[in-house]
Amino acid sequence: MNEHISGNLLIIGGAEDKQKDCKILKYFFREAGSKDARICVITVASDQAEEAGKPYEELFLNLGCQDLQIINIQTRQDADSQAIVDKLIRSSGIFFTGGDQLRITAMIGGSAVGRTLQHLYEGKVIIAGTSAGASVMSETMIIAGQGDTPGEDLIRMAPGLGLLKGVIIDQHFAQRGRIGRLLTAVALNPYILGIGIDEDTSVHVQGDGRIKVIGRGTALILDASYANISNVDELFAGRPLALAPVKLHVLSEGYEFNIWERSSSVK
Amino acid sequence: MNEHISGNLLIIGGAEDKQKDCKILKYFFREAGSKDARICVITVASDQAEEAGKPYEELFLNLGCQDLQIINIQTRQDADSQAIVDKLIRSSGIFFTGGDQLRITAMIGGSAVGRTLQHLYEGKVIIAGTSAGASVMSETMIIAGQGDTPGEDLIRMAPGLGLLKGVIIDQHFAQRGRIGRLLTAVALNPYILGIGIDEDTSVHVQGDGRIKVIGRGTALILDASYANISNVDELFAGRPLALAPVKLHVLSEGYEFNIWERSSSVK
Repeated sequence: MNEHISGNLLIIGGAEDKQKDCKILKYFFREAGSKDARICVITVASDQAEEAGKPYEELFLNLGCQDLQIINIQTRQDADSQAIVDKLIRSSGIFFTGGDQLRITAMIGGSAVGRTLQHLYEGKVIIAGTSAGASVMSETMIIAGQGDTPGEDLIRMAPGLGLLKGVIIDQHFAQRGRIGRLLTAVALNPYILGIGIDEDTSVHVQGDGRIKVIGRGTALILDASYANISNVDELFAGRPLALAPVKLHVLSEGYEFNIWERSSSVK
Repeated sequence: MNEHISGNLLIIGGAEDKQKDCKILKYFFREAGSKDARICVITVASDQAEEAGKPYEELFLNLGCQDLQIINIQTRQDADSQAIVDKLIRSSGIFFTGGDQLRITAMIGGSAVGRTLQHLYEGKVIIAGTSAGASVMSETMIIAGQGDTPGEDLIRMAPGLGLLKGVIIDQHFAQRGRIGRLLTAVALNPYILGIGIDEDTSVHVQGDGRIKVIGRGTALILDASYANISNVDELFAGRPLALAPVKLHVLSEGYEFNIWERSSSVK
């Protein structure tokens, strides 16, 4: 799977601490170059773009950022704007705020901004996203499905930004009890690795295939590629899921996962 | 592990249907002997014993049960009463209603009723329990712990009735997002198999080590015996859990799990 990672992603499960230690946001700031960081905060996920950008602007400026742009994209025309592309191209770190993942993809998918992101990704510029901004990282993203029992309420999915291949992300994971929908997602194609990230928790996906956990909670990784039992063909008839065995990795800070080898280790 | 199952248990995740198909309760009635069933409903888990027993009484009578006893145990003296023991001894099916699992164990643990249950269990009389009545089946039971991120809020456990060995049960499983606490429980001793049962779902644990799923949702089985990563020693310092890999089996009706082989199959 080593063709799947060509960049540097910080994927955050939402509700990251912005008041106390700010561990995850400080980590992002450091990875983006600390005082030399040129950060673009993209607020397209939110229809309250200004409010969405404000806390990040304050925080990064407080940390000593001297070059910060809030990128407000409200239309597909904005997403094709050369002025915005120019700001992105010179950045050393991109941060997607939360909101609605469909706003992100509907606005920037296939646009000049979308192409620029792919370019930055391949150039190893760190791209971070929280909540909706986390979900869009993958090729296919989960957009709805609150069903408790896996399979009962079918999840709805849509094409994501496609930076991270072979993976599907879910966020606010433990807090919103989302393992059922992530199990359903990986059942639909066990080639896909499912990564569920708790609030105030993030995974740093690196070019060498390593995933490092940073933050307060856990990241749960589901690998259904070994499953010899699956009733996924019956799910659309409203049956509850059967899927076994699934390899599950519960990881917290200090532990890593290797996407290529699909195995965990101590850092 | 074949020393671990000497009986016949129907373990229900709570909120089983009593209005429509009543699939699980009909299954219990059939296993107890149908029209020849001699059923004891034990309401000790509830401090509203009469209300707790009523719906089961009505349902089993409606199904054609001709011999039904509601066993109301309010004190440890009740649990030593020969009259109650006599009722239990002649039964062909025992049903524990929901409520508080600590009421069950505090009242009947070590009593004549407790000893009689063990005797009935060894004699293969079917013993069913829903919700709190499900949790008490095992040697160690979960009594609290709503923490979302595994390990964050430590679960609290207590000794159960000890009928089913080598297993820990959790109920209302998907509905209350309890995978975090069950993961924590199996991390504390990976020898223990974790079984999380959804509402209106049950597992029939049979003497040959097979677990059969009956009902609307899924049973999720966690086997951490393969884990080579664990930080369980750090949990009590408030760290979130790391545990990997864990083998997970998501099973719905039509699928079985074998406790001895720790593997799933199609029925």
